[in-house]
Amino acid sequence: MAPRIVDNHTTDSYRVNVIGTDSPVLAVLCGDKHPPDMHSIEQAAEVRYTGADGLAGALAGADALFVYDFLSTAVPGAWHAADRLRWLHIASAGVDPVLFPGLVDSDVVLTNSRGVFDDSIAEYVLGVILTFAKGIARSLDLQRENRWLHRESERIQGKRAIVVGTGPIGRSIARLLRAAGLRVSGAGRRAREDDPDFGTVHASGTLAGHLPEFDYVVAVAPLTEQTKGMFDAAAFAAMKPSARFVNVGRGELVVTGDLVTALRDGQLAGAALDVFETEPLPTDSPLWTMSEVLVSPHMSGDFVGWRNTLVEVFADNFQRWREGQPLRNVVDKSLGYVPSAP
Amino acid sequence: MAPRIVDNHTTDSYRVNVIGTDSPVLAVLCGDKHPPDMHSIEQAAEVRYTGADGLAGALAGADALFVYDFLSTAVPGAWHAADRLRWLHIASAGVDPVLFPGLVDSDVVLTNSRGVFDDSIAEYVLGVILTFAKGIARSLDLQRENRWLHRESERIQGKRAIVVGTGPIGRSIARLLRAAGLRVSGAGRRAREDDPDFGTVHASGTLAGHLPEFDYVVAVAPLTEQTKGMFDAAAFAAMKPSARFVNVGRGELVVTGDLVTALRDGQLAGAALDVFETEPLPTDSPLWTMSEVLVSPHMSGDFVGWRNTLVEVFADNFQRWREGQPLRNVVDKSLGYVPSAP
Repeated sequence: MAPRIVDNHTTDSYRVNVIGTDSPVLAVLCGDKHPPDMHSIEQAAEVRYTGADGLAGALAGADALFVYDFLSTAVPGAWHAADRLRWLHIASAGVDPVLFPGLVDSDVVLTNSRGVFDDSIAEYVLGVILTFAKGIARSLDLQRENRWLHRESERIQGKRAIVVGTGPIGRSIARLLRAAGLRVSGAGRRAREDDPDFGTVHASGTLAGHLPEFDYVVAVAPLTEQTKGMFDAAAFAAMKPSARFVNVGRGELVVTGDLVTALRDGQLAGAALDVFETEPLPTDSPLWTMSEVLVSPHMSGDFVGWRNTLVEVFADNFQRWREGQPLRNVVDKSLGYVPSAP
Repeated sequence: MAPRIVDNHTTDSYRVNVIGTDSPVLAVLCGDKHPPDMHSIEQAAEVRYTGADGLAGALAGADALFVYDFLSTAVPGAWHAADRLRWLHIASAGVDPVLFPGLVDSDVVLTNSRGVFDDSIAEYVLGVILTFAKGIARSLDLQRENRWLHRESERIQGKRAIVVGTGPIGRSIARLLRAAGLRVSGAGRRAREDDPDFGTVHASGTLAGHLPEFDYVVAVAPLTEQTKGMFDAAAFAAMKPSARFVNVGRGELVVTGDLVTALRDGQLAGAALDVFETEPLPTDSPLWTMSEVLVSPHMSGDFVGWRNTLVEVFADNFQRWREGQPLRNVVDKSLGYVPSAP
């Protein structure tokens, strides 16, 4: 069957293209660039590429929605048009942009891109930890001034890290930091010992009591009502003055003003932030210019080739969906993430 | 026995202090700061702390010399005064500053501080590799401009590294890079397979033929007549255009002009340099300002507490020396380093 592809970026009025009765309709919410490598999917579905403006039109009559532009907040506003949607897949690990009541209360199955970013984010976290320990930012500053200034550096071996969030990204971080010589614990929903990746996992509710033990605190929890703002003044006050905070989860896990104050007051020694409450980080944010703060533009997981991998993950699930097989990475919409195997 | 300590920093005329006939005389070549934690040694020897100017005076009648200022080049010029020296210990891994003919041809035993820096240097190497892979220097540059610019980053998992130098520092680097997911080979005097840390070790003489395979080339060989200038135009021309070169060995392993030219010509993609032919690196060196070059001031091994550890290593050997036990870390003066166990 020849593919019928519609591009709805340029118009709000949506033309319905019926290919055949057995051919599903797939809406793809994307930015300026279409996802790569969609050929096999275009052979098997009517694919409607759309931006935010055309989303409602594209959703009318669509069986599935692929949220490729995973930072878009357009889905709730177009949801009224979803008259036969059965499946929504998002090209990210965090599902908070689509976890609104209309979806949660519906029968639409939600899947995510769990797994794609795990190891890349772990490498980024180890990279910023070594950047702190080895004083690399300071070396670069001195290099800019052609200044030779010998300093001592910190070891990472034996240092203690806690990874807040025990999903697959957190596990990959834990494994890599352990391999590099750090002593790692976790924080998650349920306290336990003998976790294969973390050893000890503290219950997130008791986190503040444990924070004083750690040299590095890594936030990678999913954004839910329970985790929103969990890194607040009390949490930062509990950290060691020598501790560094790393956020590769969501900006909203942090009360940004509290972090700025805590850094200014020396309640912790530094922060590496890849995610922010508002992205792009506003140009007047004090975080840009604070010493001992590393700002990166929500890129920690985005290795060369990531976009192709995201489409591969979607294509695999699309094939399963067409064949009536169980989908991978089904999100528990009441939890807000894909539950781990018990 | 009460210690008798002489400070010879301030005068060229050296006063001989005889403590007792069984008390050895130890000269300590140090900069402005004495080594820490020398108390136990001061109980057991007449200790003569001296700078470069007073070294000849301190060497006259000395049984042992502790070169704590391991960057000093003063030993050859004062060697004529060493009338009863039996042992020279240097507070570094590289012994090239004291490996001059007068010492090589003498019966003086040379020991070094093998082991102190291994793991710290390995962490530094992993840190600069991640700095390259994750674009951290560029992120810091953009941060300085308050600019949010998403980029893709490189993975380190599966990337190939060759560590040139298979002594303990090279082995520690190999183990850590492997633990972090890189594929590591070595280069040393003798080609072999199934090395516990490196797997394959190429003979250094055949290195150029293998360089095109590697994403990261790490230099940590001891400086000898054989290794001096081994990284020259031909070596850099053999590297991948995407390769990065890391030098944590000695600056003289590299023909600096050839490196600058190769970087300018795009024969390799970057370099992280902790050691230089001339240290401090002259302010007019082009390396300071080249993009994709990381300059650090010979600090990769110098973790917080390193000076105390260096004295512990010396004190352990001093105790052995006093008791007539075999010394640790005896340098083969014809090789220029401590040979590994076969």
